[in-house]
Amino acid sequence: MDKIQDYVKLVESSLEEQNFDLQPVELYQPMAYILSLGGKRLRPALSLAACELFGGKAEHALMPALGIEVFHNFSLVHDDIMDEADLRRGQATVHKKWNRDIAILSGDAMLVKAYQYIAQVDAQILPSVLACFSQTALEICEGQQRDMNFESRPEVSEAEYLEMIREKTAVLLGAALKIGALCGGASEASADSLYHFGINAGLAFQIQDDLLDAFGDPKKVGKKAGGDILQDKKTLLRIYSRELDSKACDTLMETSFINEESKVEAWCELITLSGAKAKAEAKRDHFLKEALDSLEAAHGENQALKVELGQFATWLSQRDR
Amino acid sequence: MDKIQDYVKLVESSLEEQNFDLQPVELYQPMAYILSLGGKRLRPALSLAACELFGGKAEHALMPALGIEVFHNFSLVHDDIMDEADLRRGQATVHKKWNRDIAILSGDAMLVKAYQYIAQVDAQILPSVLACFSQTALEICEGQQRDMNFESRPEVSEAEYLEMIREKTAVLLGAALKIGALCGGASEASADSLYHFGINAGLAFQIQDDLLDAFGDPKKVGKKAGGDILQDKKTLLRIYSRELDSKACDTLMETSFINEESKVEAWCELITLSGAKAKAEAKRDHFLKEALDSLEAAHGENQALKVELGQFATWLSQRDR
Repeated sequence: MDKIQDYVKLVESSLEEQNFDLQPVELYQPMAYILSLGGKRLRPALSLAACELFGGKAEHALMPALGIEVFHNFSLVHDDIMDEADLRRGQATVHKKWNRDIAILSGDAMLVKAYQYIAQVDAQILPSVLACFSQTALEICEGQQRDMNFESRPEVSEAEYLEMIREKTAVLLGAALKIGALCGGASEASADSLYHFGINAGLAFQIQDDLLDAFGDPKKVGKKAGGDILQDKKTLLRIYSRELDSKACDTLMETSFINEESKVEAWCELITLSGAKAKAEAKRDHFLKEALDSLEAAHGENQALKVELGQFATWLSQRDR
Repeated sequence: MDKIQDYVKLVESSLEEQNFDLQPVELYQPMAYILSLGGKRLRPALSLAACELFGGKAEHALMPALGIEVFHNFSLVHDDIMDEADLRRGQATVHKKWNRDIAILSGDAMLVKAYQYIAQVDAQILPSVLACFSQTALEICEGQQRDMNFESRPEVSEAEYLEMIREKTAVLLGAALKIGALCGGASEASADSLYHFGINAGLAFQIQDDLLDAFGDPKKVGKKAGGDILQDKKTLLRIYSRELDSKACDTLMETSFINEESKVEAWCELITLSGAKAKAEAKRDHFLKEALDSLEAAHGENQALKVELGQFATWLSQRDR
């Protein structure tokens, strides 16, 4: 995936060139800070890839790609307030390093900045690009609200869970690809195919994320296994376990464990033996296949890049870290 | 100002037709709620007036006008969190009625909704409309941050104060007018003249607001006189008092008053005797004159409406309530 690595580098260097040395500093320093904490820059890289897939130059999609990344970081700043998270990528979150009000307001300003970047496209595609971006931004808010609502609910259905991760995670991948495609000169139909590629790859990515949280190698994943289990999060694994063996689920819910390890172990055993793990893997693979079909349907002219995007989606849903 | 009252009614009835009966309810009910609390709807009414000033039909500016109003209400929801305000227009604020997280997230979603409304203009003016709106939104964030910064500063200069109220209050009036004008077919130059009309009228409006806070008739203004004085807010009256009689200011700052009334009375006396009141009135009238000059420079074809807009700006800066 050499090209995608090149796009990541282009995004990184362009981000570094952006000027956040503006007044009042309380508004702009947090933007520079959160953007400097790194992250994989996958979304903007996908915008550039989508642009070149249709024969455009990556530079044509660069400003909206940065807009996607600024938007993503805005959502992190506000989500971290809601989650009362102290750390983001190993560093203090904005509301911890400064305060709540600065995190709210600089987040708001980042959302506006994101629109300013997004708007830097040819006038003829601006209405489409803007409609896609706003719809996506609204769905991400909806997904975050649904996710918060799940915490206080006893049960969540598969359909509700999938809709939540579609909104919270997948749509921004879809939008990054669609907007990039439009910048590259794709037809609406091809841009939509790429959007669906992103949606399905995003769903597969998130299910793999849930699987890694329970079954991944902590050394590779970079965090303790079983975080979702310990928080009793209603992931797809939990939903399927209940579907396939509700009695065993109830028993585990009522059990007092002597320590965290034994709770994680017991749940992992149930998830495996009930068939929930296999079912989640099958669902993940189903979305990967849907993603690859949608990619095929897009009429991009750069075949090598199409192959690379397919490999990338496959990696997203099969990664071990 | 009959026409402007008609525009207010059109805005009200259009707002009532908007559908916020959407899922998840935690995201959309707060939007319906804050928009239902009323407010003067001056900004969207100005958009419609500006549109018809240039021969457009008010309906052409209706969606962006609603976008301006939704944006204004978004800023109230987030400002109320920062100010820890319990009441807005006599009713519970969103973060009090629901909670902080819902206020943050539904506010974010309102900002996105505002963009969705704003984007509903002819494609040929979309880039201009969008650039004006984003620049305005960013300046309003800057103004809010500057205002918060003033609280912990011992002194604020006249220029800093005017820049803060320009950003926090005036630019949204300017943008409402400019965007309406563009929807009505105005040239960029005429739309800019109307923008400057709005900026200057907004500055005059805010200075009158400061004067009313200290000297207004509480029965008419609808709140106790001297709120700014009691909070030691760095309004133009305080800044001019310091400029004109810093010794008397220092004395009052060090005085312990037996009650709130005597503090308000002492400061009002200083503001009047030092000449600060007269200086603020002169500044207000200067901005009103600038506003009327800018209005004159705009080439609107509807002369009756131009007269009405001038009367409206005059009312804004001379109102007693």
